Amino acid sequence: MLPTIRCRPAVRISGFHPGDPGIYDLESPDFNCSLKDIKSGMASSALICETEPWKDLRAHVDDIKKTHLRELMTDMERCQSMMVDFDGIMLDYSRQCATLDTLNKLNNLAQAAHLKEKIDRMFEGERINSTENRSVLHVALRAPRNSVINSDGKNVVPDVWQVLDKIKNFSDRVRSGAWVGATGKALKNVIAIGIGGSFLGPLFVHTALQTDLEAAEFARGRQLRFLANVDPIDVARNLAGLDPETTLVVVVSKTFTTAETMLNARTLREWISAALGAVQPTQSAVRLQILACNGPPYLFQNHVQASPGFRPQAVAKHMVAVSTNLTLVEKFGIDPNNAFAFWDWVGGRYSVCSAVGVLPLSLQYGFEVVEKFLKGASSIDQHFHSAPFEKNLPVLLGLLSVWNVSFLGYPARVSMESNGKGVSIDGVPLPYETGEIDFGEPGTNGQHSFYQLIHQGRIIPCDFIGVVKSQQPVYLKGELVSNHDELMSNFFAQPDALAYGKTPEQLLHENVPHHLITHKTFSGNRPSLSLLLPSLNAYNIGQLLAIYEHRIAVEGFVWGINSFDQWGVELGKSLATQVRKQLHASRRKGEPVEGFNFSTTMLLTRFLELHHRNRKRYPVLFLLEGKHGHFKGGSHNFAKDVITDSIGETMWLTTWASLLSRNNS
Amino acid sequence: MLPTIRCRPAVRISGFHPGDPGIYDLESPDFNCSLKDIKSGMASSALICETEPWKDLRAHVDDIKKTHLRELMTDMERCQSMMVDFDGIMLDYSRQCATLDTLNKLNNLAQAAHLKEKIDRMFEGERINSTENRSVLHVALRAPRNSVINSDGKNVVPDVWQVLDKIKNFSDRVRSGAWVGATGKALKNVIAIGIGGSFLGPLFVHTALQTDLEAAEFARGRQLRFLANVDPIDVARNLAGLDPETTLVVVVSKTFTTAETMLNARTLREWISAALGAVQPTQSAVRLQILACNGPPYLFQNHVQASPGFRPQAVAKHMVAVSTNLTLVEKFGIDPNNAFAFWDWVGGRYSVCSAVGVLPLSLQYGFEVVEKFLKGASSIDQHFHSAPFEKNLPVLLGLLSVWNVSFLGYPARVSMESNGKGVSIDGVPLPYETGEIDFGEPGTNGQHSFYQLIHQGRIIPCDFIGVVKSQQPVYLKGELVSNHDELMSNFFAQPDALAYGKTPEQLLHENVPHHLITHKTFSGNRPSLSLLLPSLNAYNIGQLLAIYEHRIAVEGFVWGINSFDQWGVELGKSLATQVRKQLHASRRKGEPVEGFNFSTTMLLTRFLELHHRNRKRYPVLFLLEGKHGHFKGGSHNFAKDVITDSIGETMWLTTWASLLSRNNS
Repeated sequence: MLPTIRCRPAVRISGFHPGDPGIYDLESPDFNCSLKDIKSGMASSALICETEPWKDLRAHVDDIKKTHLRELMTDMERCQSMMVDFDGIMLDYSRQCATLDTLNKLNNLAQAAHLKEKIDRMFEGERINSTENRSVLHVALRAPRNSVINSDGKNVVPDVWQVLDKIKNFSDRVRSGAWVGATGKALKNVIAIGIGGSFLGPLFVHTALQTDLEAAEFARGRQLRFLANVDPIDVARNLAGLDPETTLVVVVSKTFTTAETMLNARTLREWISAALGAVQPTQSAVRLQILACNGPPYLFQNHVQASPGFRPQAVAKHMVAVSTNLTLVEKFGIDPNNAFAFWDWVGGRYSVCSAVGVLPLSLQYGFEVVEKFLKGASSIDQHFHSAPFEKNLPVLLGLLSVWNVSFLGYPARVSMESNGKGVSIDGVPLPYETGEIDFGEPGTNGQHSFYQLIHQGRIIPCDFIGVVKSQQPVYLKGELVSNHDELMSNFFAQPDALAYGKTPEQLLHENVPHHLITHKTFSGNRPSLSLLLPSLNAYNIGQLLAIYEHRIAVEGFVWGINSFDQWGVELGKSLATQVRKQLHASRRKGEPVEGFNFSTTMLLTRFLELHHRNRKRYPVLFLLEGKHGHFKGGSHNFAKDVITDSIGETMWLTTWASLLSRNNS
Repeated sequence: MLPTIRCRPAVRISGFHPGDPGIYDLESPDFNCSLKDIKSGMASSALICETEPWKDLRAHVDDIKKTHLRELMTDMERCQSMMVDFDGIMLDYSRQCATLDTLNKLNNLAQAAHLKEKIDRMFEGERINSTENRSVLHVALRAPRNSVINSDGKNVVPDVWQVLDKIKNFSDRVRSGAWVGATGKALKNVIAIGIGGSFLGPLFVHTALQTDLEAAEFARGRQLRFLANVDPIDVARNLAGLDPETTLVVVVSKTFTTAETMLNARTLREWISAALGAVQPTQSAVRLQILACNGPPYLFQNHVQASPGFRPQAVAKHMVAVSTNLTLVEKFGIDPNNAFAFWDWVGGRYSVCSAVGVLPLSLQYGFEVVEKFLKGASSIDQHFHSAPFEKNLPVLLGLLSVWNVSFLGYPARVSMESNGKGVSIDGVPLPYETGEIDFGEPGTNGQHSFYQLIHQGRIIPCDFIGVVKSQQPVYLKGELVSNHDELMSNFFAQPDALAYGKTPEQLLHENVPHHLITHKTFSGNRPSLSLLLPSLNAYNIGQLLAIYEHRIAVEGFVWGINSFDQWGVELGKSLATQVRKQLHASRRKGEPVEGFNFSTTMLLTRFLELHHRNRKRYPVLFLLEGKHGHFKGGSHNFAKDVITDSIGETMWLTTWASLLSRNNS
């Protein structure tokens, strides 16, 4: 029998809807035998909500609902003990709707969830990602060279450092100009192609580093861009202003089969080989113009140069890979010696400290800067592994998040991919709310957009992250404070505004007209926490990353979720394959839309028809046929050809064609 | 007596917590007399949840909970009637958890909420923003020149067109080079300073336009940037690679008092006048170096040139305003003739079609392109005003949103500032959930981040917005489909993946191992809607903007919320003032932190102390004193001065100073 999993019957169950008709109701008598077996298999798993500490916390919610942060904040002892300091970072969580008693109870919950043991098991390389039968060892990616972290009885740290040394060597050569492109020029610009964790983490670090003075100094004269989305608009934006002669492309895909990444990689391979020589001469017979934008505001400029003759090595000189599939890497045209490895025990979204992030970031900022980033992350790793829970930053953040989401019922923040699950790690549908919705804005921008919501609308726990020393200080004579102090005035003010609110009595006292009292009233009692960092350099960025990585792990460990798999994205991918085939068949062979539901059929038909209509309006298409065109500064000299075959997709080139026609006239 | 407002007692009331102790309980006997008056004043207002159609919809929820989209999608008649076509845009809302009956009931709710009358009142210029006593007439901003829209009995359309004509004239002059900067050069680059609605709307339009072929052609050689956040890092990013000689700054602030905007404006005024001549000679005695970054990857380069002698007109030539406060505009140093007006009846977040957006966008793309954008918005305005509800795109989107949020209980999407309120327009605390959390990602990026959450975690209604014809088509020979078709394969696949899910039986059929069945199961029944646009040019962007503007209005009209005020952001602002004063007093006069709660006092002290520590480490500060330095390409030649006064903020300049020292060595 299924255990009684409905601890909170009032809460909607996300992943499963027992009330729904049909096969989702695991209790249904119609349910087939095999599924019943699965069901009984699940029965052995105990859910955290059945433990005493969980029930104790549920009962405790009523105590907390009677409090208001306005009062809780007057308790100095409470506030003092809710400030935690580690390695220069100060965490203040006194504005959480929680008492010291709450923290004790959360600590009991952590014990019941075997949090310490789970953390240890992660660091010990056990296969805690059980659904994919993998260990979870992103901490090994930033472990000091002499440390020992085993996976299947083998120390992985030497492997990590072998790749890091290889990255250092390669990036040093590229940066010094020892490695040059096909035409002998140094490679100053890097486009990293990857999606999901293969770009979000590296982009976060790049965004933070690019205004850091030390890092910027090392990046002088270089550019790093990330290409993720398969939309050709993103290709155009990425190529804007870049010259293939001085550009290195890093293709990031563990399997080298990720659909979006590989299509973008092939597109950029075409861009490079069209300009600098083909990887395979046979592929150059018909080559398409790829539109590129020339820097903001995106001037259109064709990068395909008059052919300099085929250079079979162009792609090998201008493209490298972060992948483990050396066969496909070589088949693509990349020298397998220029493939940088990572491992099964690195989840996509925890991969920024592997070659995924370290390679492009080292090319841009030099390995030494990136090593500081790794050291910052490592500092938090050791803290997370060894610090007692009451002083442990990621543990505190994780437990408070569980409190906010599962007990207070707030739709709290982040880790949407990792913990957006409806079943426990053992496959049991969860009867409590997990997963969060996260959003944010730098600086004061949010105050003019979603702060209305967080102050007077729904209660959404907030994290405020501030920095003592600005990366780019400005002070204007005559101003009351510097620009950074102006920014930080808001950092200090907002948490109190959320916690205290403003009462009708205060408003009356200020002679606010009666009809506006309720509009101007702020209930307050809205939880937040504050993280104050000394500065925002490579080291601090590493700390920040690791804190939030581990926070997610803590939540997953307590909820009993596997934070390290991501089955949820598979279904959409497989349906996209069906659509792709249909688009191909309809355009090439005129086949009707079949095998979809009514609505999708209608939408797809509309999509295909509108193309057709556009096509009639612009019948002339321009393609390069066996030659390389030249189009720069208004001088057009390239082969034009009216496409007579029925490759429907090419009609999209019509707007471009019409633009060229206008330029020519 | 208060009316019985707890129609859904199980739902937590956002704005007010009657269970909380203290003055928030309007029912408390301790409540003072004046507040009781307010309370009784509220009693006259009827809430929408007391109406029969609302109750009918609440009862209807149970019917819908028994359905699954997998079945609803088989009803062709239902799907057919849930597809709406207007002006080239196709809306498909068949994947909403709703039947035709639901739509009838929502229509009844619209009647009960007097939606039609409220829409008419908006278009007729009535003061529907009652808390601020203003009419709401952003539709007048894009009305045809010959139309009549009255506010207080006066046709405002001629005023609108007077400003539009002025913008056309000014932007034509700047773009043609008839208007030049202080040194006689044409102004190619524009920085628009504004925050909230003064930058989010214009930035949205700019982002969409910059890869449109026609618009990009008109923007050739020009740059447009937006400066919002008060963080000096944003100043540095904005100035990166720009030359003050060729830059025009547009300061957007209705009152010319917005704290962040005006500090950023003064910072850029300093940047301009330091390089091109002071606005007031007395202010130039000590002028600070402003760091700027030189294009990605942010090389640091000082833009202050050797002084060309004072040119009092420099600021007047390089700065214009969008404001109604001509006195402050002039005092700032901007010629009041170069101030572009907007009106009280334009809410900040509905202002993109006023000079707020039209001026910077016209400078970048030319007025003709922006006029197409206005026409697209106007087309939707007329549709919103006149189309029957069942064919009315914004009305349908708004009603479906109310259904998802208030009845199905999903934490749905957007309009966070407008409708993130806890009280009705009459000031009555709302007993039903309103407001939404919105987030999104272009293209397939989301599939690798939050799609885990939307597929298997919480149910979050999604809007998919797709385009038939790509702005930047790419097709590679040998590929199954073009890059845009690859993108659109996902557009068509995801809604069905969400609606249908994947059953355990399907998985068994595919021989998925038993222990993975629940992990790989997708419950489906997750609502979404699809909008298919023919293309994404200026006109379509205008349509899209207006659809979502009016959707928000519809929600607010039904919920009885005033979507047009924003009291919620006021409190944080006023508390920031207190912190600003404290930072000033502590840094200048060494005063201790006083008047804050324990936690804020600790954090503030830490912030001030760390500064102090940094200061000791880098005692030497560099300031320009009465001269203009020159620092370009490594040649440094500017006055250095050790600051001896105690302007604490200047210690932030130390990292920069240390960088310069290193460069010099």
